[in-house]
Amino acid sequence: MKGRLKSYWTERKDLVDRALDALLPGESDFPPILHRAMRYTLFAGGKRLRPILAIVGYEIAGGKDISEVLPFAAALELIHTFSLIHDDLPAMDDDDMRRGKPSSHKVFGEGLAILAGDALFSHSFRLIAEADAPAEVKVAVIREITRATGPEGLTGGQVLDLISEGVEPSEGLVIDIHRRKTAALISCSLAVGGIVGRAGEDLLSTLRQVGAELGLVFQITDDILDEIGEKEKMGKGVKKDLERGKCTYVRLKGVEAALSDARALRDRIKELIREKIGEEKGWVLVELADYIVERSE
Amino acid sequence: MKGRLKSYWTERKDLVDRALDALLPGESDFPPILHRAMRYTLFAGGKRLRPILAIVGYEIAGGKDISEVLPFAAALELIHTFSLIHDDLPAMDDDDMRRGKPSSHKVFGEGLAILAGDALFSHSFRLIAEADAPAEVKVAVIREITRATGPEGLTGGQVLDLISEGVEPSEGLVIDIHRRKTAALISCSLAVGGIVGRAGEDLLSTLRQVGAELGLVFQITDDILDEIGEKEKMGKGVKKDLERGKCTYVRLKGVEAALSDARALRDRIKELIREKIGEEKGWVLVELADYIVERSE
Repeated sequence: MKGRLKSYWTERKDLVDRALDALLPGESDFPPILHRAMRYTLFAGGKRLRPILAIVGYEIAGGKDISEVLPFAAALELIHTFSLIHDDLPAMDDDDMRRGKPSSHKVFGEGLAILAGDALFSHSFRLIAEADAPAEVKVAVIREITRATGPEGLTGGQVLDLISEGVEPSEGLVIDIHRRKTAALISCSLAVGGIVGRAGEDLLSTLRQVGAELGLVFQITDDILDEIGEKEKMGKGVKKDLERGKCTYVRLKGVEAALSDARALRDRIKELIREKIGEEKGWVLVELADYIVERSE
Repeated sequence: MKGRLKSYWTERKDLVDRALDALLPGESDFPPILHRAMRYTLFAGGKRLRPILAIVGYEIAGGKDISEVLPFAAALELIHTFSLIHDDLPAMDDDDMRRGKPSSHKVFGEGLAILAGDALFSHSFRLIAEADAPAEVKVAVIREITRATGPEGLTGGQVLDLISEGVEPSEGLVIDIHRRKTAALISCSLAVGGIVGRAGEDLLSTLRQVGAELGLVFQITDDILDEIGEKEKMGKGVKKDLERGKCTYVRLKGVEAALSDARALRDRIKELIREKIGEEKGWVLVELADYIVERSE
């Protein structure tokens, strides 16, 4: 990340990190082991892509007071972290490393890791319910989120991922898993920001669409980085997907074709942003699309 | 259960079961294995205590149209089922039987069981967000529920239960675990019904209090039944708690003293109901308190 995107990101990431710290129970709050486990993965690093996308959506919709969207942005990061903790479990992807540190279940044991995930998911809805916003906005956000975390989204995608291990991947299956498991929550994050910023239906629909395509590119790049990335930069094991026979885009098409498809998709996303949102309002998304495809971590 | 309580319960249980069936994706909806797993534990039986308590709270508050409270009642049963599926996992209580059938992870494997629980939890908030009720009511319900499922409630109670295995139980610890792990959601269920029935703050506070005490009695009786109950009637393994060194009320005090404490608590609950709600409006709760203490399943 560089230039104005980098300063935009750094400023907002700092706001998100401070909101997360303020909105979560402290490590010494009872029962401390649960709060330590919740905070361990949450603060192990991470780009804060989803909460920052919520802020981006909010600002594109015309929102002026970022503090209004922060509890919603924080809730999205809690949900993402819940999904990471559960996905890393031995019964799922069995990943020992996450964000450069041992996974939650390696540190706290499987039982506590499952419960820390559950508690983060639960707390995300509490943050929304207690946010300083009109009830209609909160309900619309919860509708948007529960569509993204349900069978059409996160949980359904993880189920497909799990039952498809070792299956010969078809392009339809791989894209379906990626759209549910990754793109649904990324799309939802942009839309949630839009809702809190009082976007109209047309803009919301554009935000959902841009988010869904960005999420797909993000996951294709993730598949590429799993194949060619450096373990240190990624903060998690690499080449794990191929070892487990995961249905990835790279397994389907190879690294070069995957990268070329990601770039083509990126170009279409930039076109969509320019046409529907405009370069001035949508510059963060345009530059983010470039960053996602060319990133090395 | 007998007499007018039995007919009251049977009628409402039927409404709850039909609502659950209508409000959940079908078994053939994509991905079918996830929906089969979600429905498997949900429809394996169960008293429907929490959703019926929501209806009771709604009717005590003066609610006339039960269909108004049903999506909220259904959401509470989804949350209860999510907690059962996760609690039964090998990393937690490691229970092979639930509601008279093999536990979710014995049938679907651990990964799918975890995800079915996650999906039920997610769907419960979707049902609330999409219910036909004012946004303020939905938000108040979600606040009530997330307090009951967070660290002060379900997830915190399960953490305490997990880390206290083999510990010499003190009365304070046992009651703390029971209040969080069991009583919080039961208390919340009565209160949620009250919120949907537009109860005032005084009545809500009474409903919470009665529900919390009922929940504690329910768990003490559960501990007793784990010790002396019949496996067939319970639909789950018995004497499991003592084998695992769980902090139960029976381990603390023995069966006779536990039963005597449960009866004394029951009498105080009935007194509270008569004083704050009245015999006419509160008869279901009065008779339920008797049933809970004397039940054999």
